Amino acid sequence: MSEHVYNLLKQHHSVRKFKKEPILESHIKQLIEAGQSASTSSYLQAYSIIGINDPEVKEDLKEVSGQPYVVENGYLFVFVMDYYRHSIVNQESKHDMETSFESAEGLLVGTIDATLVAQNIAATAEDMGYGIVYLGSLRNDIERVREVLNLPEHTFPLFGMALGIPEDDEDGSPKPRLPFEHVFHQNQYDRDVESQREQLKAYDQTVSDYYSARTNGERSETWSNQIANFMSSKQRLDMLEQLNKSGFIRK
Amino acid sequence: MSEHVYNLLKQHHSVRKFKKEPILESHIKQLIEAGQSASTSSYLQAYSIIGINDPEVKEDLKEVSGQPYVVENGYLFVFVMDYYRHSIVNQESKHDMETSFESAEGLLVGTIDATLVAQNIAATAEDMGYGIVYLGSLRNDIERVREVLNLPEHTFPLFGMALGIPEDDEDGSPKPRLPFEHVFHQNQYDRDVESQREQLKAYDQTVSDYYSARTNGERSETWSNQIANFMSSKQRLDMLEQLNKSGFIRK
Repeated sequence: MSEHVYNLLKQHHSVRKFKKEPILESHIKQLIEAGQSASTSSYLQAYSIIGINDPEVKEDLKEVSGQPYVVENGYLFVFVMDYYRHSIVNQESKHDMETSFESAEGLLVGTIDATLVAQNIAATAEDMGYGIVYLGSLRNDIERVREVLNLPEHTFPLFGMALGIPEDDEDGSPKPRLPFEHVFHQNQYDRDVESQREQLKAYDQTVSDYYSARTNGERSETWSNQIANFMSSKQRLDMLEQLNKSGFIRK
Repeated sequence: MSEHVYNLLKQHHSVRKFKKEPILESHIKQLIEAGQSASTSSYLQAYSIIGINDPEVKEDLKEVSGQPYVVENGYLFVFVMDYYRHSIVNQESKHDMETSFESAEGLLVGTIDATLVAQNIAATAEDMGYGIVYLGSLRNDIERVREVLNLPEHTFPLFGMALGIPEDDEDGSPKPRLPFEHVFHQNQYDRDVESQREQLKAYDQTVSDYYSARTNGERSETWSNQIANFMSSKQRLDMLEQLNKSGFIRK
């Protein structure tokens, strides 16, 4: 019975300013091992991890992401959904496995597998004293990422993660999350619109107060406004096409 | 600098035999909090968690899963991709947000968000001394799960997790993972088929030896055989249809 992990995870916030010191080789190995230890659906292990320290590769990926910390960090991971090895087994076996990894079920399994691995790595890295930030922004240009990382068919770059020692003036803090009673349902989903609305209203105030306090009143956006603006900007609408091109959701 | 999390995660194995003792209420609350602390894409928090202790609901879900530990456990979670709250905000705002959560990008974001939450809960639970097992088998009958849990449009049940105190005779052990050099690529993906084949061949021997040792030689399947059999059985081919019906990948 330990509360070490609970206390560690509760402190999580994304770090976006890192010292230039590279992460120890021995730590990178440990991080991958911790990642591989995560549960995997039907033992499929439908992921690969690209570890990046080559400055040119980092620069190429920064152009996709637009974020400076894709270059300025202690190390960079890209998490890839990966059925390439399964397609190699498929070539040798007399089975028809393609339908399986080209189905929507295959997409869910691969995305879940890769994400379980990534979050094990995040928790282990934070326990070692590093900071981390996820990079969904690599999905801004899937074709370019595939090219830069030489990704074959039946693989797909889901997201990246930059990590390193936080800069001394890094001052992030955990951002308020949706109310507990809003995300947690007992035995059945509570779909009552009025109560959901009430909860979101209270949360909007909490988020607005949080931004206001951190920016001396300059910013006081609510959560609802923030997500409405973001989601109406219709980003990455080529994703289905990119998945299809890479061999996913064909069936 | 701690190696507590590394050592904990390296010991992970799925537990499928639990004592009947329910998990402490205070622990359930802590688990959800740890889950909510995970990173979330663009602050969207596109998930909900259903916590289940009602024996009837458990029985209904066991019929879907086919696994006895869906009923026999200390507690049960179902992780739901959830844009219902975003659709409520959408009704009130003048924005058109639907395209965003009905796109393939929305599916990736929601699946990743929910999985990050789940893996935080898994690690925290194991640190508290509980065992866990993921339940992808809830996807055997999405319509029935939606009905049992009263899930509205723009939500989707991704997977469950049973947890509890492991039975005294529970004797699981970490299953060997794919070779480190096979899942880890430096700076670029190594798509050389011959070297991948060599690595898989060595891994097949490792897995075969593992099963053989655990079953006194009764079972000695390789990984390649296991996944070829599983993937050629073409399971859950209705997933795209189920996602569409629930409001996903429509665009």
